[in-house]
Amino acid sequence: MYENFKFDVIFRTEKARLGELTTPHGVIKTPAFIFCGTKASVKGISPQQLKELKSQIILSNTYHLFSYPGADYIKSRGGLHKFIGWDKPMFTDSGGFQIFSLGHGSVADEIKGRRSGISTLCKITEEGAIFRSYWDGSIQLLSPEKSIQTQKCLGADLIVAFDECTPFHSSKKYTELSMERSHRWEKRSLDEFIKLDNGDQAIYGIIQGGIYSDLRKRSAEFINSNNFFATAIGGTLGSTKEQMYEVVEMAVKDIDISRPIHLLGIGGISDIFRGVDLGIDTFDCVHPTRIARHGGALVKNKYRDSKVREHINLKRSEYANDDNPIELDCDCPTCCSFSRAYLHYLLKANELLALSAITIHNIRFMNRLMEEIRQGIFTSSLNEVKLRWC
Amino acid sequence: MYENFKFDVIFRTEKARLGELTTPHGVIKTPAFIFCGTKASVKGISPQQLKELKSQIILSNTYHLFSYPGADYIKSRGGLHKFIGWDKPMFTDSGGFQIFSLGHGSVADEIKGRRSGISTLCKITEEGAIFRSYWDGSIQLLSPEKSIQTQKCLGADLIVAFDECTPFHSSKKYTELSMERSHRWEKRSLDEFIKLDNGDQAIYGIIQGGIYSDLRKRSAEFINSNNFFATAIGGTLGSTKEQMYEVVEMAVKDIDISRPIHLLGIGGISDIFRGVDLGIDTFDCVHPTRIARHGGALVKNKYRDSKVREHINLKRSEYANDDNPIELDCDCPTCCSFSRAYLHYLLKANELLALSAITIHNIRFMNRLMEEIRQGIFTSSLNEVKLRWC
Repeated sequence: MYENFKFDVIFRTEKARLGELTTPHGVIKTPAFIFCGTKASVKGISPQQLKELKSQIILSNTYHLFSYPGADYIKSRGGLHKFIGWDKPMFTDSGGFQIFSLGHGSVADEIKGRRSGISTLCKITEEGAIFRSYWDGSIQLLSPEKSIQTQKCLGADLIVAFDECTPFHSSKKYTELSMERSHRWEKRSLDEFIKLDNGDQAIYGIIQGGIYSDLRKRSAEFINSNNFFATAIGGTLGSTKEQMYEVVEMAVKDIDISRPIHLLGIGGISDIFRGVDLGIDTFDCVHPTRIARHGGALVKNKYRDSKVREHINLKRSEYANDDNPIELDCDCPTCCSFSRAYLHYLLKANELLALSAITIHNIRFMNRLMEEIRQGIFTSSLNEVKLRWC
Repeated sequence: MYENFKFDVIFRTEKARLGELTTPHGVIKTPAFIFCGTKASVKGISPQQLKELKSQIILSNTYHLFSYPGADYIKSRGGLHKFIGWDKPMFTDSGGFQIFSLGHGSVADEIKGRRSGISTLCKITEEGAIFRSYWDGSIQLLSPEKSIQTQKCLGADLIVAFDECTPFHSSKKYTELSMERSHRWEKRSLDEFIKLDNGDQAIYGIIQGGIYSDLRKRSAEFINSNNFFATAIGGTLGSTKEQMYEVVEMAVKDIDISRPIHLLGIGGISDIFRGVDLGIDTFDCVHPTRIARHGGALVKNKYRDSKVREHINLKRSEYANDDNPIELDCDCPTCCSFSRAYLHYLLKANELLALSAITIHNIRFMNRLMEEIRQGIFTSSLNEVKLRWC
């Protein structure tokens, strides 16, 4: 199993590590950031552009594609890579996060602006999760087997076991019962994966256990003891930044470090530095591309106008007369030709170009961040890199 | 005057001609198509992309920019070229078309989806046109002098005299009175242009006269006898395709052919061939970029699914399983990587990428069309070119 996949740690300083994650669609240099192409498209950006911006890997959401256009349809188009015209590595999630988080109402904005109905989690049974589709209102079951079958049809290189994303407000008892069910689901996911395996995909197990160190430890040991290719840290990471770092630290402690480690749904700049320090290899988050569509441009320390935000909001009137690019030292096409004033104007005038132009900057920003982080690990100067970016 | 501008006819077959229109921002090979960057942006497409698609020239609408963000603002940003990051030739219209056509309610969809109020033409006086701004509801006057001052601030290479765009339903008497007023306005435009001239811009006179050959003749003679750099054919061209060709033919007959000739607002494929046959050098139309945003992809003869439409509608379900690109022989980035099926899916899923991807195809399509038309003139094979494209 996993004969077409490989993970090599090529350099290490304390826990932070430089790696190469080999897939059938190429090698990902880690630490790496995975961009969200939620519905089989990074909003407003073509695969050609993603490559020009030096992006290594994108993800699509199984839940969305399961709802529409359907996994069989994408399989009949030759799989996700062929369908969207992207020949580099891809990642799909299990679909669980969206079902559970939409069910709990916490990321309803994910589908804002789409059809009027939003998804509802109807019931969690041992078999799987029953929910109402946001696309057509139909009642659907997503089980571990169904999730793996779906991800098999989609054909991403890296796929994920099906688990319950336990919300923060759960009791320790519920978190434990939920984790145990997730372990059973993940075992069934792995069994289904092995049954269907043809060498094209590798599967991540997910560590649950909420904010409880004993549960995180048990969950890590469970994942380590099963033949997953890699490990992802899932579930709630607490309610504050500090708690998040604590939870990630306790979760990472017992993970088998010969496997790649992914931190699900985290993409803040300082969060990434903390994650890298703790040994995380890959990150994904909708944040860089989502804030772009609301006028938010990611900027390094020296270009910020706020101590708390890692981006500037180009809708603000102070940018109307600012002839500088978003960042003077950025090499992205947006910074090479557009001023903050023009981007401000485009946002005010509701011009489509604003959305893709700022998204392009944020994508290149994240890729440059990861390039400098990798360089920083290699030259043992991660702290200096951090001072420039945080 | 016009020392930085030049128009050379380098080859001619009957009336159709191959030309070079020199401006301070470079040479336009004619016949050429001018893309609409209505509000200082071709919707969803960057200047860098426009260049990669081999676009020669874009236009912006004085009316929109006059309303927001204002001509003085754009001047303070260094003019349109600098503001939008486009260093090739630019064209602005006089603002008249939008005021009059919005006033008559015929192109209200131009501002669909924008602020709720739409512009209203309040009154036409000898001084100019009084209207209510769609942007903020304020009462504004656009006069010949104001239009030229505004276009001066915007700084496009090619600008246009202010005229009344007489609607089709006007009587001959009204058309004549309106034409005579337009002539007075155009003379005032030219006077203001000369007063402000610094060599950076050249001005088009516009021929009015509606569908009446005697009026078109008088209007052509008026424009010829004044020192405009070039001539545009404006006003109504009738209510049918055949009438349009007749009106263009009668309008073009008396134009001074040593000057470049522009046909305002026409961009259908067969219309362009008819125009080129009659000696038209440049065309502009929002059609190629607008239909793209509704799923319409321009295609040559052999790829059509209709005898009447020059495009295919990718929203139609028949494209859901079509793995071909929009056109098999197109070299645009969209045709190089996306199938009709993927574009159909993106449209159905309301993904932004659909809009820019189809716009990219349509822009490259128009540029290839004009390249082949120029080649066809040079090799006296325009009819064969027409058979492939119409």
